[in-house]
Amino acid sequence: MRTIIRNGTIVTSRDLYQADVLMEDGIITGLGKNLKIEDGDRIIEAEGRYVLPGGIDVHTHLGIPDTVDDFESGTRAAAMGGITTIINYVDPVRGQSLLETLRVWKEKAMPSCIDYGFHSIINECNERVLEELPLLADKEGVTSIKLFMAYKETNMVNDLQMYRLMKKAGESGILTCVHAENGDVIDELVEEAVAQGRLAPIYHALTRPETLEAEAVNRALRIAETAKAPVYIVHVSCADAMNEVGQAVERGGHVYAETCPHYLVLDQSYLELPDFEGGKYVCSPPLREKWNQDKLWEGIASGNIHTIGSDHASIPFEGGKTRGRNNFAQIPNGLPGIETTFPLLYHYGVYEQRVSLSKFVEITSTNPARIFGLYPKKGTIAVGSDADITIVDPARSKVISHRTQQQGTDYNVYEGMELQGATERVFSRGEELVSNGLFVGKPGRGQYLHRQKISPSDALKRGMIK
Amino acid sequence: MRTIIRNGTIVTSRDLYQADVLMEDGIITGLGKNLKIEDGDRIIEAEGRYVLPGGIDVHTHLGIPDTVDDFESGTRAAAMGGITTIINYVDPVRGQSLLETLRVWKEKAMPSCIDYGFHSIINECNERVLEELPLLADKEGVTSIKLFMAYKETNMVNDLQMYRLMKKAGESGILTCVHAENGDVIDELVEEAVAQGRLAPIYHALTRPETLEAEAVNRALRIAETAKAPVYIVHVSCADAMNEVGQAVERGGHVYAETCPHYLVLDQSYLELPDFEGGKYVCSPPLREKWNQDKLWEGIASGNIHTIGSDHASIPFEGGKTRGRNNFAQIPNGLPGIETTFPLLYHYGVYEQRVSLSKFVEITSTNPARIFGLYPKKGTIAVGSDADITIVDPARSKVISHRTQQQGTDYNVYEGMELQGATERVFSRGEELVSNGLFVGKPGRGQYLHRQKISPSDALKRGMIK
Amino acid sequence: MRTIIRNGTIVTSRDLYQADVLMEDGIITGLGKNLKIEDGDRIIEAEGRYVLPGGIDVHTHLGIPDTVDDFESGTRAAAMGGITTIINYVDPVRGQSLLETLRVWKEKAMPSCIDYGFHSIINECNERVLEELPLLADKEGVTSIKLFMAYKETNMVNDLQMYRLMKKAGESGILTCVHAENGDVIDELVEEAVAQGRLAPIYHALTRPETLEAEAVNRALRIAETAKAPVYIVHVSCADAMNEVGQAVERGGHVYAETCPHYLVLDQSYLELPDFEGGKYVCSPPLREKWNQDKLWEGIASGNIHTIGSDHASIPFEGGKTRGRNNFAQIPNGLPGIETTFPLLYHYGVYEQRVSLSKFVEITSTNPARIFGLYPKKGTIAVGSDADITIVDPARSKVISHRTQQQGTDYNVYEGMELQGATERVFSRGEELVSNGLFVGKPGRGQYLHRQKISPSDALKRGMIK
Amino acid sequence: MRTIIRNGTIVTSRDLYQADVLMEDGIITGLGKNLKIEDGDRIIEAEGRYVLPGGIDVHTHLGIPDTVDDFESGTRAAAMGGITTIINYVDPVRGQSLLETLRVWKEKAMPSCIDYGFHSIINECNERVLEELPLLADKEGVTSIKLFMAYKETNMVNDLQMYRLMKKAGESGILTCVHAENGDVIDELVEEAVAQGRLAPIYHALTRPETLEAEAVNRALRIAETAKAPVYIVHVSCADAMNEVGQAVERGGHVYAETCPHYLVLDQSYLELPDFEGGKYVCSPPLREKWNQDKLWEGIASGNIHTIGSDHASIPFEGGKTRGRNNFAQIPNGLPGIETTFPLLYHYGVYEQRVSLSKFVEITSTNPARIFGLYPKKGTIAVGSDADITIVDPARSKVISHRTQQQGTDYNVYEGMELQGATERVFSRGEELVSNGLFVGKPGRGQYLHRQKISPSDALKRGMIK
Repeated sequence: MRTIIRNGTIVTSRDLYQADVLMEDGIITGLGKNLKIEDGDRIIEAEGRYVLPGGIDVHTHLGIPDTVDDFESGTRAAAMGGITTIINYVDPVRGQSLLETLRVWKEKAMPSCIDYGFHSIINECNERVLEELPLLADKEGVTSIKLFMAYKETNMVNDLQMYRLMKKAGESGILTCVHAENGDVIDELVEEAVAQGRLAPIYHALTRPETLEAEAVNRALRIAETAKAPVYIVHVSCADAMNEVGQAVERGGHVYAETCPHYLVLDQSYLELPDFEGGKYVCSPPLREKWNQDKLWEGIASGNIHTIGSDHASIPFEGGKTRGRNNFAQIPNGLPGIETTFPLLYHYGVYEQRVSLSKFVEITSTNPARIFGLYPKKGTIAVGSDADITIVDPARSKVISHRTQQQGTDYNVYEGMELQGATERVFSRGEELVSNGLFVGKPGRGQYLHRQKISPSDALKRGMIK
Repeated sequence: MRTIIRNGTIVTSRDLYQADVLMEDGIITGLGKNLKIEDGDRIIEAEGRYVLPGGIDVHTHLGIPDTVDDFESGTRAAAMGGITTIINYVDPVRGQSLLETLRVWKEKAMPSCIDYGFHSIINECNERVLEELPLLADKEGVTSIKLFMAYKETNMVNDLQMYRLMKKAGESGILTCVHAENGDVIDELVEEAVAQGRLAPIYHALTRPETLEAEAVNRALRIAETAKAPVYIVHVSCADAMNEVGQAVERGGHVYAETCPHYLVLDQSYLELPDFEGGKYVCSPPLREKWNQDKLWEGIASGNIHTIGSDHASIPFEGGKTRGRNNFAQIPNGLPGIETTFPLLYHYGVYEQRVSLSKFVEITSTNPARIFGLYPKKGTIAVGSDADITIVDPARSKVISHRTQQQGTDYNVYEGMELQGATERVFSRGEELVSNGLFVGKPGRGQYLHRQKISPSDALKRGMIK
Repeated sequence: MRTIIRNGTIVTSRDLYQADVLMEDGIITGLGKNLKIEDGDRIIEAEGRYVLPGGIDVHTHLGIPDTVDDFESGTRAAAMGGITTIINYVDPVRGQSLLETLRVWKEKAMPSCIDYGFHSIINECNERVLEELPLLADKEGVTSIKLFMAYKETNMVNDLQMYRLMKKAGESGILTCVHAENGDVIDELVEEAVAQGRLAPIYHALTRPETLEAEAVNRALRIAETAKAPVYIVHVSCADAMNEVGQAVERGGHVYAETCPHYLVLDQSYLELPDFEGGKYVCSPPLREKWNQDKLWEGIASGNIHTIGSDHASIPFEGGKTRGRNNFAQIPNGLPGIETTFPLLYHYGVYEQRVSLSKFVEITSTNPARIFGLYPKKGTIAVGSDADITIVDPARSKVISHRTQQQGTDYNVYEGMELQGATERVFSRGEELVSNGLFVGKPGRGQYLHRQKISPSDALKRGMIK
Repeated sequence: MRTIIRNGTIVTSRDLYQADVLMEDGIITGLGKNLKIEDGDRIIEAEGRYVLPGGIDVHTHLGIPDTVDDFESGTRAAAMGGITTIINYVDPVRGQSLLETLRVWKEKAMPSCIDYGFHSIINECNERVLEELPLLADKEGVTSIKLFMAYKETNMVNDLQMYRLMKKAGESGILTCVHAENGDVIDELVEEAVAQGRLAPIYHALTRPETLEAEAVNRALRIAETAKAPVYIVHVSCADAMNEVGQAVERGGHVYAETCPHYLVLDQSYLELPDFEGGKYVCSPPLREKWNQDKLWEGIASGNIHTIGSDHASIPFEGGKTRGRNNFAQIPNGLPGIETTFPLLYHYGVYEQRVSLSKFVEITSTNPARIFGLYPKKGTIAVGSDADITIVDPARSKVISHRTQQQGTDYNVYEGMELQGATERVFSRGEELVSNGLFVGKPGRGQYLHRQKISPSDALKRGMIK
């Protein structure tokens, strides 16, 4: 069946024009003025709406223990928020084959409503792991891994491991994502605070200072330079860390940076909300002083920040966050947000005129696709691309509430915010998932994405130079 | 009649994909896979070719005294070089109405083979001029003017005039272009050199040092900030001047910068060629030391330089440049280049991997269209845009020579360079101007372009933030 | 007669130690522990006091029309404020020989209580002036001139004049001081404001924006670079202008910058004081937004600001400032402050720990002496230097008031401030001018200072690289 | 006995003047013109000579295994090179009390010819060490420690240890010196090179790239910021690392940096000298590409580099360096240079006009004394200071050769260089150690220096803000 979206305002990361979009067999096959209608064509009227490439959330944690969203509920929430693709993190099992672990997660992801790929988190470095890396990329299309510089008890790798893994990853066409915080020193600051009886949620932020994020960012970038490997810094939270990225770019590094909506919209003061409300806002890196928000928006505008990820972790409040009611160090880290990333960016970015519509598309879709090997299948509205399309009605608004959300958590950190712009329809490979604001998709229809490798001169070839 | 360009690689300033382009009535009306062919359709096979938005040269001086290219020969040369639109400078006549002067130039431009617009050069500031500015924009669609900070004898304005003109221009939706060199001090340096018998062409460069370009750039930017007006620095020649632009952007200025191919490809040493060969290379600002080239390329990649203009001035060598054989100060300033801008940028930029294909399209077409109020009519390949398309065959190369050029000059400053990539076909509003490398267009078919105004928040609205 | 200052804490721009100072015949002839006392020696006990090189105020306007302080009262006020040397500006008379004008001012200065030199303001550029420059330096030891980029009606020079004068000055061993504001555009902003009925004192500040000071600073520095001449920017008022100086230093320029106490202590809000109190605070460049103060203090600490000048202009309030009661444009520009510079810097700099004692000495005495050709005769406490010494008692404080000041004005812009640290004694060439806080000096004892030339590599030779 | 140095040109880090210096009982007790001579006074004529504060070498490794210079020969060499004070590193013995280890080294140092202090290297972090830190400072006046970020087998500490030690050190008034190279990654690069058969000395440099020095510098600075502790980066070798220091200063850090003469005078190409000559030049960080030299000199001039240390390690060539003839990884690291630091800095700095004489004094004597708690006892020529004086004859030159040196090594890395300026006489606490270029000092006369603590606001109080 053919579907024609008529007369919408098509927005790509560069262009904006009024035309019809023809979708056939899950692919965009035509863009045109007054496309000829054939018998049986489904017609979607989109006059006055923005027709956007579906959002790509490259930082999700669906399906992890002690969280409430699995791949079904999580991708349903994503779709409702305009997201048509996710790349989810695969938690490692120490000693277990990466390929085997991946297989388990591919199983878990079967009920997905939208397309999905994986990044493999790696927390050990040995012969087996190094041998599996090229296989991950070649056989499975997993062309990104993630390393942690914090969380000593679980995932943290040391500098030598990081160097070896980055080097092998780079040689294998794999991009290394890094969680950059100096875990060793942070653990000590946490211990100091706890010993002094400083136990409220705000101490979560005060024991993970910006300088220790910036340090780790610099270290990751320098080690990547040494390993001649591309690197991607996840969830940059503050100006100081972002500036380290900017300097690496000036040194000629092959470097990308991501931020999250909560660093753009929330700030450290939320951690001081009374009655343990602050506990909901515990994530790492922590929310920062408010002045950083402007710097991050400027970074998006100027190209120092390339993507937005939700870092969705659906920890419940009761029985989850509340475990740390008496000690911030026991609050599980992470915020739910897969459903709100796209709408928050539209409202605070486009509607409040911090960024253009094209820049919005660039950071929510085009850059994620380019950087993670999905372009031009995903990330744009062009002939031949997947028909992943989100239609936004700029005239309508919506109030965020956990009562009306698809996300499984019993709260929403943006509760009560009224956001201009409403997700009206969402198509994934031509299939309608959201129709007039209602979810109509089917679990299990999502496909696994075998992603392209990253090449050393990638930035240039893909035209990503800022 | 309908024309279909089949199977080419379509490149916009962001996307690159293989598809067919349908052109009807001068407009791109469809993009698609295997577009259905109707009776009478003209089919152009473009497999293996790049299908690019036609180039826009926003800095040309056709039709000025003592040069050899009028609008017919000049636009023919432009088309042969892949350019489908020019914005030409209107020379002022002191005391004469801007509208009246414009009328004369519109007359001159009648034989154009491609579409054209005008910038009005202004060299006086009085009630009449200030009153005419909004009329220029509203009635004539001339939404850019140009001011000179050098050439005291003819066009130079002082700071007060610049402030008043910029302010009025900004209020009128007009962008002010500035030739930024400190003319007062340069004239003195020239006098000093002549008095000392330093008469060879190289002294043209040595009497117009970078510091005096950078000074004028800073002054223009600061005065524009004071006048709250947008500003466009023409022909930035060196790193020092470019850095002043970058700093103004960081201060939040609404600022654009252009460079020219000769600053990217040639350097100061050419002025020292023997037998007065150096005289051919006299232009202002002058060619600079070679190290500046890398900095300008980096500026293009990082977004500090937004456009490329040819600054085409078709001064003949014999009887032109040679007037200054014994005294550099009498050499007419300016290089011919309307025909070579696009091919040089393709070769030294794309082929030699300094910039991506999309960045090439961005600086040769998309940015010029956005900045000068022609977008999306011009500047992209999208449904609804003018069918201005240049097809480049990357597999073929061409040697530059004045013997084979369309430009009227008796020399070519790039003589003998072999450039990879050949302009195979050029369409302007769907009409073929170049066919298999031969000019087949008709004089007089070019249309005058009534351009849109620039708005204060233009940078944001048009998604131009870097 | 010999005088020994005993047991004080001697502070130079680098050292701090307890010792005795021996003064003979106006010269420091010895520094030592327990210097042997000879018959007839005068002994000054200075235990617990700072023994500092006398202050040098290189920016004074004594003896100008419509002000109340002549060289007698002005230098008396200076001495009471710890200043032992001034360099006063010589106002030009257009058409009159610089040497002749200087002669008149040397006459005026005869009643001075302290030593004095002159800078010649130059407001025209012709053969005569250019010929007189080397004579000024060689014959008269006037090794600095001053040019204005504002005040079109009186002193402003254009870029060509500035270049010629700087070049000749540089060749003559003369340092060019520059008042850097873009007068042309400022005059227009003033006219605009007046036409709109914006007449209150605050509009003085709003019509002289920082960007027009920064522009002029950049222009002066660039022209000086072109002329290969050293340059000194007087009264830098804001961060933006200071940063232009910092960049010129990084480009390798031979550049110095001065600020004034009012830019460090007062701010733009003073111009909004009711009942025309704001009128007292009109000076040019104007007082700036308060945040600039921190940046200027940082500039002092980091070496981007080299000196402090009072810019003393003793305009009375009644009959002076009040002339502009109904129109800010008619308020005479300038603040009185020769008496308070040293105490303000001590209090806000040293006492409030923004700068060290040695840095205080550096900017109030050592740097002024080095830059203006008086070192080591002035500017330090070293054997062989003039016995110009100010003894400060850090334990005492003083409240500033026009009632108790020596300055002739009927107000003091720092009225009521209580400053820690009191000037206890002041010696000029060994003669006591201030004794236990009372003025005991004699008019006419001050000597004219024939200053050394500045050399191209001065910065290096004098160890002034920051 | 009194000694008078007559008529020399006295140079401090700020002043330069001609006077006599009176020394009594090891102290400078007077500075004056034509000081009165008493019976028995020793008179040293110094007309035409520079009279400088004795050099302070804060980075020496005398008395370590497998080197040839003990405290006697090493301090004799130092004195011959104009050095009157050293601060030597105490090698740690894991598990042994710091105080006990220090005691052993104080014993070793007994034969010193000049005054000496110690920095304690620390390579473990436990209760005992943390408890001993305040004792080190209070009881022993050892107010600096040193941590290594490289050399895993011996001295390297990890980030947690560094944080804890810096924090305790800061609280104890102790400055932490850091050897900043990322040892973990370097060890891996070395292994890679060895495995690939890249065994020549040049691979020593190539396996310790600048980026891994810069990384470690940033990390040390960030951890020090977190610990609110002052930090001193030893032997900065390249621009990239130096820039990290500059940025920390701008962030408000309490930070100092040292470079060594070999980074200013030698470069990476020396490692490629044939016949294993290159092996002599192996030190860590390694010699860098030559362009870094200019940047380091600029850093000295602008105040980003505060001190010069020799990093003297007297490894013999035969039997020492030659152990790595077949494998760079087995070449002992370190260069001899205690005797040549002062002369090299004078020649390449002052004589070749890269820095002023006062800057020379600042980095060779005044800054070392201020930073390491010896000022004003050491570091200047002022009344009350120790009579540590080096007299240099600028008119004479000297050729460096291992044949004529006091250093014990069988080579000199500056062999054959002719340096302008000769050390004529050296006084330590008034005793002559070098007389007319000959060593006349006595072993064992050197005194142990109990140094002052560093305070948090040290930079300000000591006037060290750049």
